[in-house]
Amino acid sequence: MSENTKRTELYELGEFQLIDRLTQEIKIQNDSTAKGVGDDAAVIESTGKQIVVTTDLLLEGIHFDLTYHPLKHLGYKAVVVNLSDVYAMNAQPKQITVSIGLSKRFSLENVEELYSGIYLACERFGVDLVGGDTSSSLTGMVISITAIGEVLKDRICYRSGAKENDLICVTGDLGSAYMGLQLLEREKRVLEGNKEMKPKFEGYDYILERFLKPEPRKQLIDLLEEANIVPTSMMDVSDGLSSELLHICKNSRVGCRVYIDKIPIDQITHKMAAEMNIDPVVAALNGGEDYELLFTVPIATHDVISEMKGVRIVGHIVAENAGAMLVTPHGEEVAISAQGWNALANEEEDE
Amino acid sequence: MSENTKRTELYELGEFQLIDRLTQEIKIQNDSTAKGVGDDAAVIESTGKQIVVTTDLLLEGIHFDLTYHPLKHLGYKAVVVNLSDVYAMNAQPKQITVSIGLSKRFSLENVEELYSGIYLACERFGVDLVGGDTSSSLTGMVISITAIGEVLKDRICYRSGAKENDLICVTGDLGSAYMGLQLLEREKRVLEGNKEMKPKFEGYDYILERFLKPEPRKQLIDLLEEANIVPTSMMDVSDGLSSELLHICKNSRVGCRVYIDKIPIDQITHKMAAEMNIDPVVAALNGGEDYELLFTVPIATHDVISEMKGVRIVGHIVAENAGAMLVTPHGEEVAISAQGWNALANEEEDE
Repeated sequence: MSENTKRTELYELGEFQLIDRLTQEIKIQNDSTAKGVGDDAAVIESTGKQIVVTTDLLLEGIHFDLTYHPLKHLGYKAVVVNLSDVYAMNAQPKQITVSIGLSKRFSLENVEELYSGIYLACERFGVDLVGGDTSSSLTGMVISITAIGEVLKDRICYRSGAKENDLICVTGDLGSAYMGLQLLEREKRVLEGNKEMKPKFEGYDYILERFLKPEPRKQLIDLLEEANIVPTSMMDVSDGLSSELLHICKNSRVGCRVYIDKIPIDQITHKMAAEMNIDPVVAALNGGEDYELLFTVPIATHDVISEMKGVRIVGHIVAENAGAMLVTPHGEEVAISAQGWNALANEEEDE
Repeated sequence: MSENTKRTELYELGEFQLIDRLTQEIKIQNDSTAKGVGDDAAVIESTGKQIVVTTDLLLEGIHFDLTYHPLKHLGYKAVVVNLSDVYAMNAQPKQITVSIGLSKRFSLENVEELYSGIYLACERFGVDLVGGDTSSSLTGMVISITAIGEVLKDRICYRSGAKENDLICVTGDLGSAYMGLQLLEREKRVLEGNKEMKPKFEGYDYILERFLKPEPRKQLIDLLEEANIVPTSMMDVSDGLSSELLHICKNSRVGCRVYIDKIPIDQITHKMAAEMNIDPVVAALNGGEDYELLFTVPIATHDVISEMKGVRIVGHIVAENAGAMLVTPHGEEVAISAQGWNALANEEEDE
């Protein structure tokens, strides 16, 4: 946590004053936000578009570690992981609600820092904070965010529409957030009980930022709209590419071929992986927290998609009975298995 | 917690299997639910009505105590407190998302019990469970629910529309949930470390149920629609009548006169209050967790409202400069002060 000199205890304010304090500077950006904070519920004006709703629960010690996660970054990330799910429906996020539970460890200044990250994400992606709940917690911090977006009915993308011969595409690069997390955990172990030492982060800003403050892929949604292309299926990559490919194959009742040497992996990810003796492809396949978009498009869109900024074609869809396979540089096929991220097993490791 | 003989550990299932297990019996009840659980986000079909959104975060040890709160009741209540906020907008709830954090203490059977209460509330109030998040927690249970409802634009009720001379009304009775909580806490203290003894609950079912398994006032919303009456303001009573009256007065820039002897208080509340040496009026004013509806209507509707089932007229709105006052049976006026419920100070008491 940051070392603010001032420390105002939360119980000095009480719930209503804290909420007033945190919401006083809200600027409403969307016409569809008819009523924001301050009543029993927020009100969203109907625009005739379909509404998408997604929610995420983040718990201290499970989803984030405040020994290395700055509060402002955490606030930003907590919003972004939800916006990423909205973009994954090919929708534009418009509103969020934010509920937080806070233990006595946190001062008003800490909470304001968290909210500065929340508001930064809101501003950057044109989203209104319209409601929430604030409570004390006996142990640590709890953040629960719900995001609401809108999309024209004929542009919505599910996981279930991929068709044989469709191209499989991903945005950005994969595995970098996972390597960032490994670096943070390594430095945390090294520094434990040793306040004199400084963590060794030089040259690794990119992978650290990918983990601590990821950017959702709004740009892809805008580019797809401009190009008048609707993906046949789409989802965001939060649990690793393998797990997400299997979701699309299962929901669409298809198989896939993904070429390992086409999976986008950044230089810094390669470098860190080599240093830590981790296969960078495994980080991309099973790492998680990339918040990139994985999508399929008809092969007829190939020329437009292959020129689209930040998009990489990594494979294609095949018939269901051909299975979901990775193709090695030597042309061998390997069945994709979901290592994924077992949010419920996590706890076992923590003890 | 219940004493199920079977105990299946959550980590044996993993997150995806747990979600499959908990969501396999979902029946979609609303046409507006275009896509429920199973994609990056739920999709709600636009109906041209306004959408209301509300959210609540419930933390073990702060908002509920599993030593006396049965998991099924807790699941039911967690939904209901959100539906109550939707009804308070004069809207009908249609969808909820449910996120839970679970420590190792909880088995699959425990979680299924919690969800049986969640689904019971969904079925009873015509609501679809459309999404959520499931995670492990290091300490205890976390429940975060978001409810979504719809309402015609010209029927929506804010806290801000009360006008001079409007009647002030409440549904049901007040203070009973608070007395139920006092009884539960008393018996918990008595029984601590004494497993032979049985708690003394006979004759107090009503107040226990009011606390453990409250019912939201859907009926009022239906009756108001039938009678073609739109309240000028409305909110639900979750923090005690005093606090809520002050919210309406502040937001509507009015004052009020509420007659103490008209505040609806149940016989059992009176009885328990006498036994515990608590003023039942104080329980009604400051107790909280009633989940009744407080609303104002034009005086012209008096005859219809005074005949409306479950509704009591408790006072009227006056000019802002006349202040917010209670009127005693002797005609004295006492300024209303919000003792409310300081969710952030709570923690102090728990230690």
